[in-house]
Amino acid sequence: MFNLALPVIQAPMAGAQDWAMAAAASNAGGLGSLPCAMLSAEQQRDQAAKLRQATSGPINFNYFCHTPPVPDEAAENAWRALLRPYYRELGLEPDARAPAAARQPFDEAACQRVEEVRPEFVSFHFGLPDAALLARVKATGAKVLASATTVAEARWLAARGVDAVIAQGSEAGGHRGMFLSDDIATQIGLFALLPQICAAVSVPVIASGGIAGPRGVRAAMALGAAGVQVGTAYLFTPEARITALHAAALRGAAAEATALTRIFSGRPARGIMNRIMRELGPMNPAAPAFPTAGAAIAPLRAATEAQGSDEFLQMWSGQAAPLCRHDLDTAALTRWLGTL
Amino acid sequence: MFNLALPVIQAPMAGAQDWAMAAAASNAGGLGSLPCAMLSAEQQRDQAAKLRQATSGPINFNYFCHTPPVPDEAAENAWRALLRPYYRELGLEPDARAPAAARQPFDEAACQRVEEVRPEFVSFHFGLPDAALLARVKATGAKVLASATTVAEARWLAARGVDAVIAQGSEAGGHRGMFLSDDIATQIGLFALLPQICAAVSVPVIASGGIAGPRGVRAAMALGAAGVQVGTAYLFTPEARITALHAAALRGAAAEATALTRIFSGRPARGIMNRIMRELGPMNPAAPAFPTAGAAIAPLRAATEAQGSDEFLQMWSGQAAPLCRHDLDTAALTRWLGTL
Repeated sequence: MFNLALPVIQAPMAGAQDWAMAAAASNAGGLGSLPCAMLSAEQQRDQAAKLRQATSGPINFNYFCHTPPVPDEAAENAWRALLRPYYRELGLEPDARAPAAARQPFDEAACQRVEEVRPEFVSFHFGLPDAALLARVKATGAKVLASATTVAEARWLAARGVDAVIAQGSEAGGHRGMFLSDDIATQIGLFALLPQICAAVSVPVIASGGIAGPRGVRAAMALGAAGVQVGTAYLFTPEARITALHAAALRGAAAEATALTRIFSGRPARGIMNRIMRELGPMNPAAPAFPTAGAAIAPLRAATEAQGSDEFLQMWSGQAAPLCRHDLDTAALTRWLGTL
Repeated sequence: MFNLALPVIQAPMAGAQDWAMAAAASNAGGLGSLPCAMLSAEQQRDQAAKLRQATSGPINFNYFCHTPPVPDEAAENAWRALLRPYYRELGLEPDARAPAAARQPFDEAACQRVEEVRPEFVSFHFGLPDAALLARVKATGAKVLASATTVAEARWLAARGVDAVIAQGSEAGGHRGMFLSDDIATQIGLFALLPQICAAVSVPVIASGGIAGPRGVRAAMALGAAGVQVGTAYLFTPEARITALHAAALRGAAAEATALTRIFSGRPARGIMNRIMRELGPMNPAAPAFPTAGAAIAPLRAATEAQGSDEFLQMWSGQAAPLCRHDLDTAALTRWLGTL
C-alpha cells in the first residue's frame, strides 16, 4: 500500500499521542500519524519539526473537517441544567468553567502548515475540506485519505478524489467520521462495511475498527482491504499519552463494554462505558453541538479525576481493547501487526 | 466442524423459510436449520417429517428461550395510543386486531418433539432452556448450539455445557440473541467479538453477522471461527419464503440502511429501515415486551402490504445484504460459502 514497508497506519488519536508515537510507527515501517485537530498552529509546527527529525519515513497529518457550530446559549444552558446535580454533588459552583478541548477544522492556517511540512499523507475525518483547500493539499503531493462509515460516504469521498478510503467499522474507538448522516442506528460493522466499500470504489480501502493483531489484519485483507488503520492497540504502548485512569480502564473488565457517546464532545465517539454515560444515556440529545459539549463536563472531570475516579472521564476505546497486547511498544506493535 | 462436509450453517429464520431450505442446505453438505419458534407442535411434527424425508444429512432445530411476558394492558394501550394516528390515516378501527406472530419458548412440548425427531443439532436463541430440559436435549445426543452477543454471554453458555457458541456480531439480521443485557449500545461488531469469544471459551465458535460469501468465511476463520452461520444471503434464494416486498427491499438501495428495532416484536432485531421505524424511532421504548409488540402493528401491515407498501413491514436483514448474490439457490449458495 503506497510503498509502505508494512500496510499498517497508526491511527491519529487527538489528545492521546504526539510526534513520538508517530515517529516510532513510521520508523518501524508503518505510517505514523500526527493528530492535528487539537493543536495550535505553533504546536503543529513544533510537533512536525520533532517528527521530521525523529524519522525519515513517511508521515501522516490528520485533521477534522467539521463546521464549527453557531454559539447556542439556550442549548448550553439546558445542558448545564442537566448536569447541575453533578456539580452540586461535587461541591462545584454551577457556573464553574474549565477549558474544553479545542478542536479546529482544517482551515487556511492548517493548510499552510501542510504546505510547509509537506507530509507524505494527509488524512481527514468528518468529510473533506472545501475544494480549494483540498486542491492545495493535493498540490503538495500528499496522498489524501479520508474516513467513510457508510458506502454512500465512501462514494462521496472517491468522487472528490481521495487516494484511499478508510472504512471505519462501527467497532472503532474515538470519534466516528460520519458526515452524510448523523444516525448511529445505521452504522455498520467492519465485516459488512469493508467489502461493500471495496466493491463501491476503485481506490484502495483501508480497514479500521476492531483490529488488534495480525489475525485481524489478515481477516481485513481477506475482505479486500489494502491495509489497516489501528488505534486502540497503540493506546497500550508506552508512547501513548493518556491518563493512568484511562490506561487502567483499557486493561480492565470495563473495556468489555464500550458505547458510542456524544456527551463528551457533541459527536458520536466510542468510549468505555462509565457513570456519566450510563446515567445520562450515552447519546443524550441535550449535549450541544460538536465540539462544545465537553466544556460543561470538564469541571466534573477535573474534580473527580484528581480523586482517582473515571466517572466523568472520556475514555476512548474500540471494541477490541480486551484483545490488545500489553507488552509491546509502538515499534514492536507496528511490526507485529504487519506480520503477514 | 462436527464432521459437517462444509463448515456452513444455514441460519434458522423464523417466518422466512421452512423445511425445504433446510433440506437443500443439508443435502449440499452444510447444516440446514428448521426455525421452530413460530411453529405449533403439529407444524413441527409435519415439517420434521418432510425434512427427514428430503435429506439424510444432519439437521438443526432452532428454538427461542425467552420468558413470556405477563400481560400488561396499560403498556398495550399506551402502545396502541402511539399508533393511533397510523390507524386513522389508513382508515382502520382503532381497536382492530390482527393475529400477532406467535413465538413460543422452548418448553415441554418442544422437548418432546426433539426427543421424537432426534435432530443432530439443536440451537437456542435468547439463552438456554432450564437445566432439566437442556439435559433432556443433550440426552438425545444432539449437539447444542447457542447464540452469544457478548463475551459474558459466551462464558455463560460455555459454563452450561453448550457444544459450540454462535458469536452473533452486531451486523446480523433478525433478532439479536442477547439475554444477559438488553443494552444495544454495547453490542459488538463481529471483527471484535469473534476473537474475544474464541479466547474466552474452549468450545468451537461459529461466526455470524455480515458474512455473505466465501471471503467472509475466510475472514472469520482467520479470526478463529470453526465455522459460520449465514442468514441474509439465504433470503435471496428461491427457497426463501418471504414477501415480494421484503425480497425487493433486500435487492434495492434501501438495504444499505438497516437498524436494530424493537417495534415489531418487543426485542431488538435488525431490519431494513422503513417509515414506521424512522418515525417512531427504531428502539421506541413504548413497544411492549417480546413478543407482544407486533400485535398492534399487524393491522397496519395487513392494510398497507396489500397496497404494495413496505412502510409498516418488518424486513429482517443483516448489514451485508448488498453483498449477497442473486443467482444462487440454497444448495449452490451453501457450496459457494464453503469454497475454502
